[in-house]
Parts: sequence; structure tokens; C-alpha cells
Amino acid sequence: MTDRRLACVVLAAGKGTRMKSDLPKVLHPLAGVPMVRHVVDAAASLEPERIVVVVGPGMDSVAAAVAPHPTVVQQRQQGTADALAAALPLLEGFDGDVLVLYGDTPLIRSETLARLTEARRTPVGAAGTDPAVVVLGMRPDDPGAYGRLVLDADGGLSRIVEYLDATPEERALGLCNAGLMALDGGRLRAVMERIGNDNAKGEYYLTDAVAVARAFGWTCAVVEGATEEALGVNSRAELAALEGLMQDRLRSAAMAGGATLVDPATVWFAADTRLGRDVTVGQNVVFGPGVTVEDGVEILPFCHLTGVTIRKGAVVGPFARMRPGSEIGEGAHIGNFVEVKGSRVGPGAKANHLAYLGDTDVGAKSNIGAGTITCNYDGFLKHRTAIGAGVFVGSNSTLVAPLRIGDGAFIAGGSVITTEVPADALAFGRTRQVVKEAWAASYRTRKQAEKAAKEKAKG
Amino acid sequence: MTDRRLACVVLAAGKGTRMKSDLPKVLHPLAGVPMVRHVVDAAASLEPERIVVVVGPGMDSVAAAVAPHPTVVQQRQQGTADALAAALPLLEGFDGDVLVLYGDTPLIRSETLARLTEARRTPVGAAGTDPAVVVLGMRPDDPGAYGRLVLDADGGLSRIVEYLDATPEERALGLCNAGLMALDGGRLRAVMERIGNDNAKGEYYLTDAVAVARAFGWTCAVVEGATEEALGVNSRAELAALEGLMQDRLRSAAMAGGATLVDPATVWFAADTRLGRDVTVGQNVVFGPGVTVEDGVEILPFCHLTGVTIRKGAVVGPFARMRPGSEIGEGAHIGNFVEVKGSRVGPGAKANHLAYLGDTDVGAKSNIGAGTITCNYDGFLKHRTAIGAGVFVGSNSTLVAPLRIGDGAFIAGGSVITTEVPADALAFGRTRQVVKEAWAASYRTRKQAEKAAKEKAKG
Amino acid sequence: MTDRRLACVVLAAGKGTRMKSDLPKVLHPLAGVPMVRHVVDAAASLEPERIVVVVGPGMDSVAAAVAPHPTVVQQRQQGTADALAAALPLLEGFDGDVLVLYGDTPLIRSETLARLTEARRTPVGAAGTDPAVVVLGMRPDDPGAYGRLVLDADGGLSRIVEYLDATPEERALGLCNAGLMALDGGRLRAVMERIGNDNAKGEYYLTDAVAVARAFGWTCAVVEGATEEALGVNSRAELAALEGLMQDRLRSAAMAGGATLVDPATVWFAADTRLGRDVTVGQNVVFGPGVTVEDGVEILPFCHLTGVTIRKGAVVGPFARMRPGSEIGEGAHIGNFVEVKGSRVGPGAKANHLAYLGDTDVGAKSNIGAGTITCNYDGFLKHRTAIGAGVFVGSNSTLVAPLRIGDGAFIAGGSVITTEVPADALAFGRTRQVVKEAWAASYRTRKQAEKAAKEKAKG
Repeated sequence: MTDRRLACVVLAAGKGTRMKSDLPKVLHPLAGVPMVRHVVDAAASLEPERIVVVVGPGMDSVAAAVAPHPTVVQQRQQGTADALAAALPLLEGFDGDVLVLYGDTPLIRSETLARLTEARRTPVGAAGTDPAVVVLGMRPDDPGAYGRLVLDADGGLSRIVEYLDATPEERALGLCNAGLMALDGGRLRAVMERIGNDNAKGEYYLTDAVAVARAFGWTCAVVEGATEEALGVNSRAELAALEGLMQDRLRSAAMAGGATLVDPATVWFAADTRLGRDVTVGQNVVFGPGVTVEDGVEILPFCHLTGVTIRKGAVVGPFARMRPGSEIGEGAHIGNFVEVKGSRVGPGAKANHLAYLGDTDVGAKSNIGAGTITCNYDGFLKHRTAIGAGVFVGSNSTLVAPLRIGDGAFIAGGSVITTEVPADALAFGRTRQVVKEAWAASYRTRKQAEKAAKEKAKG
Repeated sequence: MTDRRLACVVLAAGKGTRMKSDLPKVLHPLAGVPMVRHVVDAAASLEPERIVVVVGPGMDSVAAAVAPHPTVVQQRQQGTADALAAALPLLEGFDGDVLVLYGDTPLIRSETLARLTEARRTPVGAAGTDPAVVVLGMRPDDPGAYGRLVLDADGGLSRIVEYLDATPEERALGLCNAGLMALDGGRLRAVMERIGNDNAKGEYYLTDAVAVARAFGWTCAVVEGATEEALGVNSRAELAALEGLMQDRLRSAAMAGGATLVDPATVWFAADTRLGRDVTVGQNVVFGPGVTVEDGVEILPFCHLTGVTIRKGAVVGPFARMRPGSEIGEGAHIGNFVEVKGSRVGPGAKANHLAYLGDTDVGAKSNIGAGTITCNYDGFLKHRTAIGAGVFVGSNSTLVAPLRIGDGAFIAGGSVITTEVPADALAFGRTRQVVKEAWAASYRTRKQAEKAAKEKAKG
Repeated sequence: MTDRRLACVVLAAGKGTRMKSDLPKVLHPLAGVPMVRHVVDAAASLEPERIVVVVGPGMDSVAAAVAPHPTVVQQRQQGTADALAAALPLLEGFDGDVLVLYGDTPLIRSETLARLTEARRTPVGAAGTDPAVVVLGMRPDDPGAYGRLVLDADGGLSRIVEYLDATPEERALGLCNAGLMALDGGRLRAVMERIGNDNAKGEYYLTDAVAVARAFGWTCAVVEGATEEALGVNSRAELAALEGLMQDRLRSAAMAGGATLVDPATVWFAADTRLGRDVTVGQNVVFGPGVTVEDGVEILPFCHLTGVTIRKGAVVGPFARMRPGSEIGEGAHIGNFVEVKGSRVGPGAKANHLAYLGDTDVGAKSNIGAGTITCNYDGFLKHRTAIGAGVFVGSNSTLVAPLRIGDGAFIAGGSVITTEVPADALAFGRTRQVVKEAWAASYRTRKQAEKAAKEKAKG
């Protein structure tokens, strides 16, 4: 149900110079998804009336990543309040609450956002008035140089004090400013007008909203979240650290749901991975986007899976690669050094060794021999291979698509198959073996001489 | 030498609801072995007269895992003392010591068990009588809600106090109840009869044995173990944590024995893995059960090994997979994307690239070319391939079993070999190459038109 | 610019018994390079007039590893001063500073060495004289049993006190002896002569140089380094720990330079790996020596790369293996289960699945089909394959070298190609497919009977 009293503004204009990248900072991925998308998705879970993303000049690629939500360009980067001001034209006529998020703090949880917006509408303090501003607070292990949140006696937020301006007593406070903020839309514009840039950098800081609101005599409030949720990304090392934290969330959720991760630190999920109950995931498995794994599936070590549905009781790996558009049937086996792309493998079918199944349908209980290659590409177009049920494809076969192989057919090992094979037929395409006795002995004599001559010539 | 004065009872009836699994909790594996089996094996190292495993109703699969030790069913789960009581019929006529272990605390060390049983027979305190009950204690970093062990002035165990009943002074004690217990068989039944269920859950707790024994005027004692040894598994996350601890033990032992693990955290052992001296194991190597690696072997990164013996000086990987029933000879090389199953590879032989050796014997110094596939399965039965010594198998060959290739034979690349090849013979089974000049140019023209038409039809 | 006033002596005679290895301790590798080589390279960065490595008897292999720097044998191992004494004959006629390093502390940084030598030439204390001895100090988290450095009031080094001889006040000092030392060459021999062996082990300790110098009335000094830099290797576990620390340095540097490491703990670098900007390295990538990766390259998970240059924008992996002498062209793609060795892959070319390219040149935009194998080895000699630009090599082809395939040629899938293919030609070498209707049905009947008979015979 859409919340018509809420708008979300995501500040994403930062250049991220320390990333040393041509890609805008907020587009660097976490769990396979651009960072800013995690923030937008968390905001969207509140079903606000609008989400507006503030970007820097030339960051068109961010617009694509956050679509269909609109973006607005912050022309000069003059601080967070300036960024929010850039979004105001898109909030014309809207007087509900405004929640301000950051495109580079992707671990924010939707539950925490919900608590922020709820607190904005909840009377606070002795006055019993709803706060003009609600700030997200956190208690980091090492508060370091974070701004400190000073509370009133009645639990309201008195002020934010920057670390450099803080007294020793204030520095001893564990409660710090995490940056995110919910503002009352009715009072937002009044607050914004009063935020000045009389500071060292000459910038407009959203942090000052609290002082301004208090100067108006309005209450402010704090909601506490986990420190992790406010962690930002300013370097590749921080990107990696946050990826690790996000993976830990996904790993914990998978285990809580009844999956065994033999070594959780070596399983990497995409944000949308879905695992069933009694799934076992071995060491070193990478899930790309779009993977669904049903109950009782066993994924052996060293697998790389993207865009595949794996049905109940199937066994995959080790060293298997699944690419998009694939489905592995119930109880099917996909073994080592096997690649499956755009293919459906039927229930109980097997492709256990060194094979490439591209754009192929394999019927139930068929056996794809070791070294089988489907030739799905002719240099210009892709073609499909249809293999029936109960088919035996001998090892090292080459199946040239487009191709149909009927149910119960048998393909002799080492064959090149180019035309349709009827059901229950044998097909082969290989030459009879020829033996030349004693040839190898004379070959060795000749080659040894050749090798010796070559080495002599060299040395 | 069997200890006729000792019986071990392993409590394994817990349902493990939080595992969210159809598999009984104690059967979830650690280092490739069911959890309860680690406990039973630790108990068995003491060579007790009997080991009895207490299971819940319907847990027949546990019986198989702990065979040949008998199981007994605890019909209703009314606490740990009730579980031990369930085992008493199987201890009829036995009056030696009884050691109580837990099927879900698989990190218990046999040395610790030995210390427990020894303490049971050792006089304690001023009285100088042997204790009726010996409890395993531990000193966790965070004692949290564990029961505390309160000692007498003379070092005996005065009582176990539950955290909720403990005074602040008692809570400050670092020595906690780890759960395992050794009881004097002569006094066991008297103790068990007095344990009541007058508590919140109405269950019978083995913990109460201490209070009962003390009420009889008997001494009790404590043996301290490492906290790790008493860690239990109640969730998949705890399972993963214990797997990590067990792996760390195995990794440390391997390094202490003279193996280099380039990154120990990425090497996973089975409980029975045996590594020689000056073995190097690269990053990301998974050992399944039944692997023996002799001195000087190099295992390159990304290998998955099960049921294989690797002889001195062999080099394996990267990306190699060894399956059960295999032996890699001295100085042999198995390279990338190679699978070996049920095969013996002779000394100095090589299979360096993209090959499948299934049910195959390879003689000394033979060379198996890239892409070679042995066809060991005809859809119904498996057959063997025997390759002699000094054989050269050309790349992309298909060897259809049953098959014999004599010493010194030479198989031309790309051949399908179906019948015996004599020693020193050349065998080939491939077609002469045909060239059609200029064909590809016209093909391109035709295909480009086809592709364009197709795209037009789409768009 | 060579520093003619400096010589470096690397002590590398330790046997390393706890390594349980036939390899001298200092030859165990870190980041792919023998440990002692890291030390020698750090010393060499100062451009000293000489570097001398002191080895034990029979350690000829160390001499090879540190060449062209000379080694000298310490005949009996009687302490560090004895080891330095062994080097003095090679410093005959040299009276500059002598920097003493240890072959088993490979994390020493060249910057720290530079600070040590600079301090040696810098007046210290009230006396304002340059120190006879400068000792590297460190402040470990747990000072444990390290020797403590006691300072003068004016900051000079008063003495080194061994832990066992230290008073409680001295033990409380955080500044410890890290072992490395710079000595004034002019006073070195005088100091060495006075170092005695009147101690428990009867050995000559370089540590005593400080006491001797002070007894002469000379000043001594301390330079502080990071504890990590003085960590030594005495066991395989310590080797693994230092490998981890060295990897963390390399990972941090890669990220600071603008590369994304999705999970840094699963990327392993060689000391000489070079990564460009906006390179993405997926999980589980191992870099061996000699790898250069240009800007914008994407390395997918599970790759093993050695001796390869990867040009801009290329995509490699997952499950790719690159071996020495290879170059992957701009925008080229190397996919899963592909091995490239001694080969140049042209710009925009593709080899996406299950292929072996050995000693091969592939022209621009050519497509190497799945399962293609180059046969570069005839059992005695290696031969090259030259594939032109715009070539289409059909899947499962076998290319027997020496071989030339002209630009724009088309190789039909499943072919064995043994002789030159002209530009724009079609080449094939495969047999026409034959079909035998209903054969498979009767085969199944026959085989089922055979299988049943076999099972009956068994059971």
C-alpha cells in the first residue's frame, strides 16, 4: 500500500575519486547489484509516493540503474543540504515526510527506514510534539571522529556536535550520527532555507537541520540502527568490506532457512538467490543473479551458477558452470567441467563429465557422455538441439545444431551427428579404426633423431 | 586393550528442529563424517566394554551410522537423565564406570575423555574417596548463561548452579558445566533413582546427579577441557562453525607434519586424509574421504580429491578431480580439467589437459593427450581400458572400452579406437581432411543475409 | 645509484628443523618467490655495494636462489655474531656501514631498511656522535619474551635486556628488539672481537654488539618498524601466516590502485603481478608469476594465471587457466575450462568453452569452438599452430600442429585438421553420419540381459 505521506531522496552525486574508476561510485556492485539499487530497493519497500535520486553531472548511467525512479542533477556539489535542495523541485506540491538516504550506504535495512519514518510521526519529549527531524544514530565500537548525538533529558535529540567541536564529555558519548534523516515535509522548506554555509568548506550540511529545527523551537529525535547500516563506500577496500558484510547476511539467512553451507565464507550469493531446505552447498560456490535451488539439491564445490533453476534432489558439480536460461530437472546430475547454457536438462538425466550443453533440451533419463559438445553456433546464428528421453549420447560426440534426436536413440562415441536421429535408432559418424603394426617403433627412432638434430642445432 | 570397567553412553535423541532438516541432527556431517560418528570414535578410542547410543523414535538411520554399536530408543524426550535411563537396560549386569557423551558435541577429544575416566577412579578431597560423579568443566571467554561449577575448598565439586539460580558471586565464576560426565557404575543406579523432575519443564536432568551424589555424602570432581570440545550443534550456522574448528585442527596437524598449505583456510580435509612430508597443497583444495598423499607431492590450486592415493613426487592440478579407486603413480602428472575415476596412472605418466580417465590403467610414462575420453560406460555396464607403458595417445582421442592398447603404441589424434592395438603399433580412426576453396567466403555472404532476414522478422 | 658506503649481510644458515622439510627454510616461497629472495630484494633496493648471504653447509640451492650475490658458508652454527663473522672475509677492505638482515624475516620493507641506514649516519644524543649500532625496534601487541630495548634519557639506545634477565619495570617496556641491525663499518671489527660466548648456549650473539659498543663509550640508536616486518618463519604454520600478511599487502595495493577484488581474501597475487585500473577480479583467482592485466579487464571466478599478459577489456574465466608465454588480446574472451599456453589470442577473438590452445596464434576475431584441441606435441617435439583472423573453428575440432589456417577459413565441427587450410576455404575431416533404425531398442534388450547375467553371476 503506497504511503502518500512519504518521499525518499537518495543522494548519489558523490564522485568517488578514491575508487579510481570510470564507473560512478554508486554503480559499483554488491552481491551483483549496483550499490545505489540496494538503497533504492530498501526505500521502495516502504512504498513511498516518490523516490528521487540526486546525481552529479554526467552520471546518466546512474539514471538507468535506478529507473523508473527519476533523477535530478546536483550541478555543483556544495554539501548534503545542497543535494537535497536539488531534489526539491521534484517534490513540488508534496508536503509529506522526506526520508534522506545515501547512495553509497547500501547496507541500510528497510526495517530501520520504517522505524525512522514511524518516529517522525510519533510525539516526542515533554512537549509531546512530533519531531521536525529524526536522525539515525549508531553506536560504533570505535566512535572515532563521527559527530556525536547529544540528547535532551526527555530523550529527544538536543543537537549534533561535530567531533572537532566536541568537549571531552561529548566525545565520550557513544551515540553517533549515522547520517540518514527523516524530515517533516511541512517544515522541511523552512529548515532548508535557514541552513547556511558558514563553515570551513563553505558547504551546506544537512546535519545543520537539527540546529535549525531546534532554533525554531521544534523537537528532534533519534532512532538507533546498527553501525553496519551506515557504512559508506569510498574506496575499493570499503567496497570489498561491505560486500563481505552483505554476503554474511545472505549466508546467515540461507543457513537459518535450512541449507548447509560447508564453509559459509566461501559461498557467494546474489541478492536474489533462493535456496530450498536441506540444500547442501559445498566450498567455493558463486551464485550469480537469477538462481533458484529447490529442496534437497546438492551443489558440490567449485561451481559457478547464474540464471538457472535446479529442481529437487539434483546434484551439481564439482566444477560445474550453469549459465542463464537453464533448468536442471529433478534428480538430474551435472558433473565436472560441464557447462550448461540456455538448456533444459530433464529429470534424472546425466551429463557428468567435460561437456557443453548449449541451447539444448535433454529428455528424462538421457545420458550425455563425457566430452560431448553441442555446436549451437554457426558463426552467425544460434540453433537448438533437441535430445529425447532415454537417449544415450556416446562420449566425445559432436552434435551439430539444429538437430533432433528421438527418444531412446543411441549415438556411438566419437560421432559427429548433423542430421535427425529417429527414436530408438543407432547413429554413428566415425571412421573404422586402422592399425599399422610396428609403425610406432620406427616413428620413435625417426623422431628421436629429429629431436637430437634440433637440439644440436640449437646448442 | 579393552577397558572392561567402562561403558560409554552417547545421547543422540535430540530432534534438532532448528536445523530445519529431514536428516537427524547427529547425522549432519563434519569433515565428511556424520557428527555422531566423531563422538562414537572418540569414545571407542578408550576401548570401553560397550558403547550405547540413545536415539529418538524413528531415527533408524542413526543406528546405521553408529553400527556396530547398539542403539536404544528414548521414547519420550524428558531430559538427559531420562535419556541415560533409556540406556540402562543395555547396561544390565555391568557395574563399571559410565561415561556420558553427547552426539551433537563432536569436537570432544579422546584425551579429554581419558582424563575424565581417570579422574573417576582417582581419590579426591580430604575424604580421599573416589568421586561418584566427574563433570567436564570449561572456561569460556563469555560464560554467559552456562551453569557454574562451584568447588569445595579441597578442589572437589560442591555443586552445579544453574545461571538463573546463581548469585552474582557464583555468576562471576569462570568455570562452567560442559555437560559430559563420568559416573561410578556402582553408584549410578542409586543416583538415577533420586533424580526428579520438579522443575519448570518437568524434565529429568543429569546435571542433578551432582546434587544427588552429594546428598548421599559422596564426593564429586571436575576435569577441565577446552571450551571448543563442548560446543554443540543446534543450527546450520553452528554446524558451519564447528566444521571450521575441526578443519583448523586438521590443518594445523598437516602443517605440523611438514606440509605446506599455501592458504590453510582454503584447504578442507576429511577426517582420514593423510599427507606426507614436503607435500604442497595450493589454494582451494577439497579432500573427500580416503585420500593418501605421499611425500613431495604437489597439489596445485582448485582440486577435488576423493578416494585416491597419490604417490611420491606426483603433480596434480590445477582444476583436477580425482574420484574413488584411483592411484596416481610416482612422478605422474595430472593436469587441468582432468577427471580420474577408478583408474591407476603409472609412474611418470601424464594426462595434462581436459581428459576423462574412467576405469583405466595407464602404464608408466604414457602420455594421454588433451581431450582424451575413455568411454567406460555402454549405458548398462562399465568396462575397463588397459593402456600399456610408453603409449602416446593423441589428443581428442576416444577410447571405447573394453580396450587394450599395447606398450609403445601410438594413437593418432582425433581417433576413435574400439579394438585392441598391438604393442608398438600405430592406430588411427579418422577421416582424411577435405578442403573446399573459397567456400567460407560464400558461406559468410549467405549467413549474413540469413541473419539479417531473421533480425528483420523479429524487429 | 649505488651506495658505496653500505654492505648488506643476510643471515640464512638456519636449518629450520621445525619445517620438517628437505628444502632449506629460506627457500620456502612466499607469493611465489623464495623467502630469502624477498629479503635480498629489499636489501638490493638500497643499492648497497655488496650483498653477502650467509648459508649453512650443503645449502647450495640457496646460492642459486640469491645469485648473483655471493654466499659464504657458516661452518658451525654458533649464533648470529658467528654468522656475521663468517661474512667478514667477503667484506675485506670495505669499511662502510653493514646492515644485517635475516633470510627468514621476509616482510621487512625497503623503506625501513633505508631508515636504519640513515639513522646510522645521523648524530644521536647529547654527545652528537653517529651511533656505532642501530637496532630495529618494534612494539608488538604482546611483547611476550622478546628482548626489551632500554633507552637513554636522550633517546639513544642504552641496552638490550633479554626477557629472562629483565626486571618487572623493564618487562613493562613495550619497545622490543626486532633483530635487524645497522653497524658502523669502521667500528664493526672492534665490536665483533669483543662479543663473547659466555652464556647458556655458548653462542655468539649479535645482540651483544650494543653492550660492547656502549662499553667503548659509543652511542647506539633505535629505529622503530612495524612488528610484522620482523616476524620470522620457523614452521609451516608461520609460513602460512606470513604468506597471508604478504597477500594482504598485495591485495591492499591492488585495490588502492583501482581494481575491484570481489572478495580480497580469495585473490592470491605473485609479488610481480600488475593490475590496471577498473580491473575486476572475481572470487578465487590465483596469480602466478609474470602476469600483467591491463585496464578494464574482467577476470571471473576460479582462474589460475601465470606468465600471461591480458590486454584491455578482455574477459577471462570462470575456470580459465593461462600458462606462461601467453597474451590475450584486447577485448578477447577466454571462457570456462579453457587452457591457454604459449599462445597469442588476437583482439576480439573467442575461445569460450573446454578448449586447449597450446603454442598457437589466433588472429583477430576468430572463434574457437567448444572442445577444440590443438595437438602441439608429437611425443617428442612441440609444434605451433597458426590460425588467421576471422577464422571459425567448429566445435570438437582437432588441430594437428604444425598447422596453418588462413584468414577467414571455416573448419567444420568435429574435424581432424592436419594440413594447411587456405584463406576463406572450408575444411572438414569427418565421416558422414550413418543411421540404423531400431538398433538401439534391440541393443537395450541385449544389454539388459547381459547386465542381469553379470549381476546373477556376482550375487
